[in-house]
Amino acid sequence: MARWQPGTRDRLAAAALELFRERGFDQTTVTDIATRAGLDKRTFYRLFGDKREALFSGGQMLQDMVVEALTESDAAPFDAVVAGFDRVAREIFADRLEFARARQSIIAASPELTERELHKMASLAAAVAAALRAKGVGDTAATLAAESGCTVFRVAFARWVSEPGAEPLADLIAEVTAELRAVTSAA
Amino acid sequence: MARWQPGTRDRLAAAALELFRERGFDQTTVTDIATRAGLDKRTFYRLFGDKREALFSGGQMLQDMVVEALTESDAAPFDAVVAGFDRVAREIFADRLEFARARQSIIAASPELTERELHKMASLAAAVAAALRAKGVGDTAATLAAESGCTVFRVAFARWVSEPGAEPLADLIAEVTAELRAVTSAA
Repeated sequence: MARWQPGTRDRLAAAALELFRERGFDQTTVTDIATRAGLDKRTFYRLFGDKREALFSGGQMLQDMVVEALTESDAAPFDAVVAGFDRVAREIFADRLEFARARQSIIAASPELTERELHKMASLAAAVAAALRAKGVGDTAATLAAESGCTVFRVAFARWVSEPGAEPLADLIAEVTAELRAVTSAA
Repeated sequence: MARWQPGTRDRLAAAALELFRERGFDQTTVTDIATRAGLDKRTFYRLFGDKREALFSGGQMLQDMVVEALTESDAAPFDAVVAGFDRVAREIFADRLEFARARQSIIAASPELTERELHKMASLAAAVAAALRAKGVGDTAATLAAESGCTVFRVAFARWVSEPGAEPLADLIAEVTAELRAVTSAA
């Protein structure tokens, strides 16, 4: 068996993104991706379940970071979740606007990828809710704080990738959080 | 061409639900469903795109009712959306707990159906946000009110179908709305 290559996963994910941009998702094969990365198909399948997964490579890191941040936080549940996404915005996305835009336009062009994205967001919300329950937050409150925090992140992220000259993602998260509080506050 | 049969759609949806319960979703064919309803396969495909759609037959009615209710409402955006789901709870689901439970357990058992359900919920939230924007609500506020209202409905619905002796859905919607406001209010 080949020695473990650090960065193999990143190389494959970067090659997939490049090819999906150049040729489109449907026109790219796993062999194309592996070849572009200077690797073989078997290596791809050791790391990813299918072609779609190469675009969702960073999802687990994002989830782990949100969960770790909220677990360490002493804030109220919703604030703790927002703090988790704030950390993600600063530590993962600060310099990655171009990457995020490229990825988003590939996903938006494919119903299959859009479905996978929805599925990943639902899994993220479930993981965040589970982490809150592990801290002793009640069942319904944990789900609501998790879902609301994920809504803030999705809306802020969508604005960040779609608005020309957008503010930094962390600033958008703070703004959208304030707007969510205003929208849901009792009249 | 056969004369239009009122109730054909409902008969097929009911037959599909029965068969999915008896045999499982994967083990049921479109021909089985049509036969159980006393109709043929062609009639099924005139009304539904595929086998999955027979389980999501009521989704358009639900969406139309929420949109109509919130469009008529003078309340603030989030309250208008909640009022829409309150109407749905009273007019569609009041006597349908057993149906909702059966449908939910079929969906939960199939990853394919769970994906379709996520997709339908995302479409519903998008339609609700569009209806709010048509009333003049700002872009971000419309999305946040729509997403938060859908979160309330999903959480209330999940409790309604899973808790033995659950309160009526409309009462759960009111409770979950209050809890969402509490969770997202500033500390």
